[in-house]
Amino acid sequence: MNEYLNFAKQIAQEAGRIMLKYFNQDNGSSYKGDRTIVTLADKEINSYLIEQVKIKYPDHSVDGEEEQSGKSTYVWVCDPVDGTAMYARHIPVAVFSLALVIDGTPTVGVILDPFTNNLYSAIKNEGAYMNDIRISVNDYQLDDIKTFCHCDMGSKTNYDICEIFKTLRDKTNHKLNDIGSIARSGCLVATGDYSVSIFMGEEHKNCDIAALKVIVEESGGKVTDLFGNEQRYDQSIKGAIISNGKVHDDVIKLIEPILDKNNKC
Amino acid sequence: MNEYLNFAKQIAQEAGRIMLKYFNQDNGSSYKGDRTIVTLADKEINSYLIEQVKIKYPDHSVDGEEEQSGKSTYVWVCDPVDGTAMYARHIPVAVFSLALVIDGTPTVGVILDPFTNNLYSAIKNEGAYMNDIRISVNDYQLDDIKTFCHCDMGSKTNYDICEIFKTLRDKTNHKLNDIGSIARSGCLVATGDYSVSIFMGEEHKNCDIAALKVIVEESGGKVTDLFGNEQRYDQSIKGAIISNGKVHDDVIKLIEPILDKNNKC
Repeated sequence: MNEYLNFAKQIAQEAGRIMLKYFNQDNGSSYKGDRTIVTLADKEINSYLIEQVKIKYPDHSVDGEEEQSGKSTYVWVCDPVDGTAMYARHIPVAVFSLALVIDGTPTVGVILDPFTNNLYSAIKNEGAYMNDIRISVNDYQLDDIKTFCHCDMGSKTNYDICEIFKTLRDKTNHKLNDIGSIARSGCLVATGDYSVSIFMGEEHKNCDIAALKVIVEESGGKVTDLFGNEQRYDQSIKGAIISNGKVHDDVIKLIEPILDKNNKC
Repeated sequence: MNEYLNFAKQIAQEAGRIMLKYFNQDNGSSYKGDRTIVTLADKEINSYLIEQVKIKYPDHSVDGEEEQSGKSTYVWVCDPVDGTAMYARHIPVAVFSLALVIDGTPTVGVILDPFTNNLYSAIKNEGAYMNDIRISVNDYQLDDIKTFCHCDMGSKTNYDICEIFKTLRDKTNHKLNDIGSIARSGCLVATGDYSVSIFMGEEHKNCDIAALKVIVEESGGKVTDLFGNEQRYDQSIKGAIISNGKVHDDVIKLIEPILDKNNKC
């Protein structure tokens, strides 16, 4: 697995260079069919990954947010720029995210924040690191004064995210926001800065969460779908709760009745 | 006014150095009485400003978020670190904000984002700049595919911010978030990256908006209280709507019925 991790880190470094290259210039933003934004960086990083996997691991496949290749038990699941809407607007909150998913399970994960030059990484059962420092989640409950949460407001969803937001805001004494990148917010859970991050994305949104699954769990946290169940990360997902573990069941109890009603907001 | 602007820019450069100095180390976070966070950077910048104003303009007063001095028609209104909760958690979204408010009116404003090294500035009636480049707001309506909005979720408020959020989310096709710094988001309105930013803060929150008032209006936008009225910036405010001007009346029409109900969420 160490070889795979090194490969992933090398891809991340190149991805970071590409992200920084376009950050302060016209980044060629355009809109996709689902009205979300895509930049030159997303496309260039995705193509680079596919090319490198073809050379190094021709039997593996790539599931990139912008482009896919092949079909295999070993899948490199990638979100080239997570937080593209922020990146395109020159806000330095966006990361590169890549996981090696083996038979549905994220086994190696790296996330690079090129703006703070922090590289988050993990191998399953071997702990999580920011650069070379071991990281771990916090142990705050939801109503702890130090708790802070991320709640994804932008994803298309069939559930009442407004009600989820309202409930969580009340429970945390207003300590929540949406920083615009689920992967970046998940790294904040891994380092103990945030207590929980909620993600509503589903269709092809395994790309956003695959690396977090292994990084946050190796930091002592927990990552499940919105209902508290395990899920595969080589196919679409049912949202995600990314937490320090301590608040996981509380969050599920809070949002379960809202999900059950099956209302949109 | 140019002399005042140069003074403000010099303070901003020192503030930026202080913000970067503590960003990657233990930033000495602690919690204030209202459960909001304060760091060593907030305190050090605030003290530095008071000291410099005393030397250079002994007749002027300072209204800093962390500390005040004197009482005058000329007030230096400052938020030393706007977005402290982000800054304390090592997210590079926080800015230094300073305005010279003359008899209630922001007349000179500077905002420094030390992470992207962008300095936003304006003198009333003389245009707004990012570094040395003239900036201007966009002309998108709320339902334009390119519209993006900031909606402050964290401030204490007596109004139903959850309902405001829900209404705005619906109208903008989910194109909104809360990046954690109202001043940073306001600069995004000034540069045309965002269309509107809504702020719920009141008590002593003139510190957060004073510089934006002149910078955004000199970029062609509009800044009022939540009800569409002008307000003084040397005392507490009634929230703020910071917009490209085009959507200003639409936003007021959308939120007016919610404010009228006078419900909390």
